[in-house]
Amino acid sequence: MRNIAMRVAYDGTHFVGSQWQSQGRSVQGVLESTWNTFTREQKRFTFAGRTDAGVHAYAQVANVYTASDYPVATVQRACNALLPADVAVYAVQEVADDFHARHSAVQRRYRYLIDDTPVAQPLLRHAVLHVPWPLDLAAMQAAMDMLPGEHDFVGFARAMKSTSSTTRICYEARCYRIRVLEQTLIAVELVANAFLYAMVRTVVGTLLQVGSGQRDPSDIAAVLISKDRRQAGPTAPPHGLTLVDVVYPPDILAATESRTQRLRIGNEDIFTESRRDTA
Amino acid sequence: MRNIAMRVAYDGTHFVGSQWQSQGRSVQGVLESTWNTFTREQKRFTFAGRTDAGVHAYAQVANVYTASDYPVATVQRACNALLPADVAVYAVQEVADDFHARHSAVQRRYRYLIDDTPVAQPLLRHAVLHVPWPLDLAAMQAAMDMLPGEHDFVGFARAMKSTSSTTRICYEARCYRIRVLEQTLIAVELVANAFLYAMVRTVVGTLLQVGSGQRDPSDIAAVLISKDRRQAGPTAPPHGLTLVDVVYPPDILAATESRTQRLRIGNEDIFTESRRDTA
Repeated sequence: MRNIAMRVAYDGTHFVGSQWQSQGRSVQGVLESTWNTFTREQKRFTFAGRTDAGVHAYAQVANVYTASDYPVATVQRACNALLPADVAVYAVQEVADDFHARHSAVQRRYRYLIDDTPVAQPLLRHAVLHVPWPLDLAAMQAAMDMLPGEHDFVGFARAMKSTSSTTRICYEARCYRIRVLEQTLIAVELVANAFLYAMVRTVVGTLLQVGSGQRDPSDIAAVLISKDRRQAGPTAPPHGLTLVDVVYPPDILAATESRTQRLRIGNEDIFTESRRDTA
Repeated sequence: MRNIAMRVAYDGTHFVGSQWQSQGRSVQGVLESTWNTFTREQKRFTFAGRTDAGVHAYAQVANVYTASDYPVATVQRACNALLPADVAVYAVQEVADDFHARHSAVQRRYRYLIDDTPVAQPLLRHAVLHVPWPLDLAAMQAAMDMLPGEHDFVGFARAMKSTSSTTRICYEARCYRIRVLEQTLIAVELVANAFLYAMVRTVVGTLLQVGSGQRDPSDIAAVLISKDRRQAGPTAPPHGLTLVDVVYPPDILAATESRTQRLRIGNEDIFTESRRDTA
């Protein structure tokens, strides 16, 4: 059996989420049925991060064990030919047997886009949250400055029955203005080793209150210390959120093909060369 | 009667075009029925530029004569509250009686977005043409350098029965790389006093052949000289195209309200202040 990893992008608008569910159209379900059409194998895909209905991805990572021996370029071409228009496979590579899209990942990067101008841009309505009043970016950044480091983020998580640790390491937390299709948006960007369920959206919901002057930036620290979900703001809606990147250690994602050897570090895309070559 | 001008943005994906048609959902039809719901008046809206099905707008301009006396801020709020999510009114202002959205306009700016990477970004699929091979941007720009000036553009126009002039003045023609949501796209931007039917898309279709190495940049000049539509390339699909701006002379769009007095010149938006103030 070969272990195949893929970098997958999707528009989450018409999905019930990344994970297979008993009802509705999931990214996993669409990928698995595409894989079945292509290889005749019934396989489970493992995803790096679970994204909710409406949440998008530029670089979700999935892996699958397969008995097929198609070259990775063929796998990518076949998948893209068979997949619906709201999912695309950016890259495919063969990985070590013990590569696990979720467990092997060391960092996830999420970005939440907000339009704080009075009238939203219709073309961006599925990917940007519209808040029709100006937000205080400096106050939001002051709040976000309290996030980096190792913390128990349970105050920002949706309640779960799990008894596992709710401590995560946040590597980066910043907000900035970004120009997208004639609109100047706000991007809230968070990088951590992993995220608790609904954590990014709950942080964003709290930041929206800070940016709107309803709360003090220091409230972010208060939520962390309290470990009480009721102290945080509401969960922001899903459609503003995108899983932008997933990072793996170089030795784990060591490529078997020379053209996909570069690992994504920061903004360098591991799969850039592969994407360019497999037109 | 007051003459009211609006700056309108829309996602053209689910419209048959900007103009009213006997069948299907047009931007004009949606605006007119919204206006009817709001004011109880049955009015015709005049548009600055006719956009086809699938073509988008950031700043289409429309005007309407009305007996209503609502303040412009109320007009904007009411329209945005009543309009579907794929149309938005960015600004409203009262204009002189002789202001005509189409006849008074002195410049239109169109932008066509192309993704020439092997795999398209799903989130942008309704606004960007995907060409899965790299395009030669320098060759495309060399071709575009022949467009500025006063020319008979009939070779780039879809055949029409009209006997009116097909001469237009092109003010700007450039292509450049633009970063949109993690994807590096190509933007083809054209500014002219006015455009013939399907002209931008036919220029782009020809440029795609130039960028793909199928034609020489000088072919653009050959099409202009020949005045023969068969010399041009195919008409590029509509979804990559956006009407980005419409410019009016300062004296014609002289604002009646101080907060909307700045006219859009270049990238300065006439309505910026109004948009900011009417949250």
